[in-house]
Amino acid sequence: MDFITLIDYAGTFAFAISGIRLAAAKNFDVFGAYVVGFVTAVGGGTLRDMMLDITPFWMEQPSYVIITAIALLFVALFRKSVVKLNNTFFIFDAIGIGLFTVVGVERSMAAGFPVWVNIIMGAVTGSVGGILRDIFINEVPLIFRKDIYAVACVLGAVVYYICYWLGLSHIVTQIVAAMTVILTRILSVYFKISLPALKPVED
Amino acid sequence: MDFITLIDYAGTFAFAISGIRLAAAKNFDVFGAYVVGFVTAVGGGTLRDMMLDITPFWMEQPSYVIITAIALLFVALFRKSVVKLNNTFFIFDAIGIGLFTVVGVERSMAAGFPVWVNIIMGAVTGSVGGILRDIFINEVPLIFRKDIYAVACVLGAVVYYICYWLGLSHIVTQIVAAMTVILTRILSVYFKISLPALKPVED
Amino acid sequence: MDFITLIDYAGTFAFAISGIRLAAAKNFDVFGAYVVGFVTAVGGGTLRDMMLDITPFWMEQPSYVIITAIALLFVALFRKSVVKLNNTFFIFDAIGIGLFTVVGVERSMAAGFPVWVNIIMGAVTGSVGGILRDIFINEVPLIFRKDIYAVACVLGAVVYYICYWLGLSHIVTQIVAAMTVILTRILSVYFKISLPALKPVED
Repeated sequence: MDFITLIDYAGTFAFAISGIRLAAAKNFDVFGAYVVGFVTAVGGGTLRDMMLDITPFWMEQPSYVIITAIALLFVALFRKSVVKLNNTFFIFDAIGIGLFTVVGVERSMAAGFPVWVNIIMGAVTGSVGGILRDIFINEVPLIFRKDIYAVACVLGAVVYYICYWLGLSHIVTQIVAAMTVILTRILSVYFKISLPALKPVED
Repeated sequence: MDFITLIDYAGTFAFAISGIRLAAAKNFDVFGAYVVGFVTAVGGGTLRDMMLDITPFWMEQPSYVIITAIALLFVALFRKSVVKLNNTFFIFDAIGIGLFTVVGVERSMAAGFPVWVNIIMGAVTGSVGGILRDIFINEVPLIFRKDIYAVACVLGAVVYYICYWLGLSHIVTQIVAAMTVILTRILSVYFKISLPALKPVED
Repeated sequence: MDFITLIDYAGTFAFAISGIRLAAAKNFDVFGAYVVGFVTAVGGGTLRDMMLDITPFWMEQPSYVIITAIALLFVALFRKSVVKLNNTFFIFDAIGIGLFTVVGVERSMAAGFPVWVNIIMGAVTGSVGGILRDIFINEVPLIFRKDIYAVACVLGAVVYYICYWLGLSHIVTQIVAAMTVILTRILSVYFKISLPALKPVED
């Protein structure tokens, strides 16, 4: 297993945990929690692959199904640790978003789409899972209301192409793009930076 | 029309009724109620077929559109009977879930996917329609909170493969798998068996 | 740019505005508002194309991404005008629905599907964006509760085929069908005509 796969799985694990924790808070049963965790982890990539007209990535090998099961077991067994490890999960989650963005850009590129589509697919991969999770548990998607999240994905995807056009090597391009997402995400939370809200239009 | 098609249509009818009744309770207009009924009936199979990259089954012939229209007419005309027939519909609904699960497994198998994908597609076919219905009417999906439902689909799909590997005939495999779903569903409701909830993780 | 493209873009602009205004009312940040506007504008056509198994239309050239950005800028800059121009936007929106319906019918027809599928795809194109918008902002979709909306799309699609079977020219068929949708929509709002609600079934 190479390094990028390891990080991909770690990101999947962190995304699954975030879904399972929220489902538990809403008293979902264990199977419902599993489903929410799985959709959070693979939902973005699934929508991306359906729009790219290729087979959803998680149907190619069972890793993602298994990782979500481990995440469920983990939450059930180590509930207190899950609380204490909040910050650790936040970091994992940020790493996951970063890597998912890079994976999304590259899968779209491999399918032959233009740059601006690839950037959108990077952002879809990194952020749609969290939106589906929030719709499932019947909340206004958090992503639209707090922090820098989807924008970090867009920024990372743009940086990917800047590196690409500068002729940097593949691995450097991947790392710089993912780090852009991860640092944007972490710094925006740390310094409580958020995008301005549109002022409501009185109707 | 063979027996399995008849049951498939009965299941579709029961699913459509369940969507239409809930939409009526929320004061949807007749067309809105039709749409919710249709999505409840075909939503699971549509998502399955989109992920399998084949044309959604209901686009191949107009039966499902027509059956939903009959269901709408039925609810409008026989409102009191619909109430009295509660238990009858529950049985139909359970039969529908059982058959939809078998159909889902076989369509995925025919598309050449591995066993574990086919099991997931069986569960998607049996349960996603009800999830979409609940999102439409803006409720936390019931499926995640009560009874054994999606788990019954997974169980039936697993039993399908046990029969298959034991070398049982096709029709016996279908019946045993569908009956597993149906009985699991009915017994769990009758004896009020539900999966344990995950205890909320304090945040 | 021909006339029909111009109208298509005007409809996209009006749909995007409607999403962005509702997102602003819920205090979404600017990027969230952009996403809701974009999904409102292209969501129906995207689901249609995914079911028809063709590449979503907005991935073919960047017009729709750009128009949504202009709509966002427009709402941010001219908030008061957006309020005053309420009626103008309603007309644009109605024109958009009419044209989207025609586009939906024709794209489905070009993909070789039967008449009844094409009619459904016309209605999906005209109305699913608004449903997704309402789910995103966590409301029961308005489309199911007020006015004639999706039904206007169905009616227009049926009229499309009546003109087609009568042997009218392509452009006349398009205009008559679109005008059917637009007038049905405007008259139903003006005269407060709505479909009857199904009386709730006591459970």
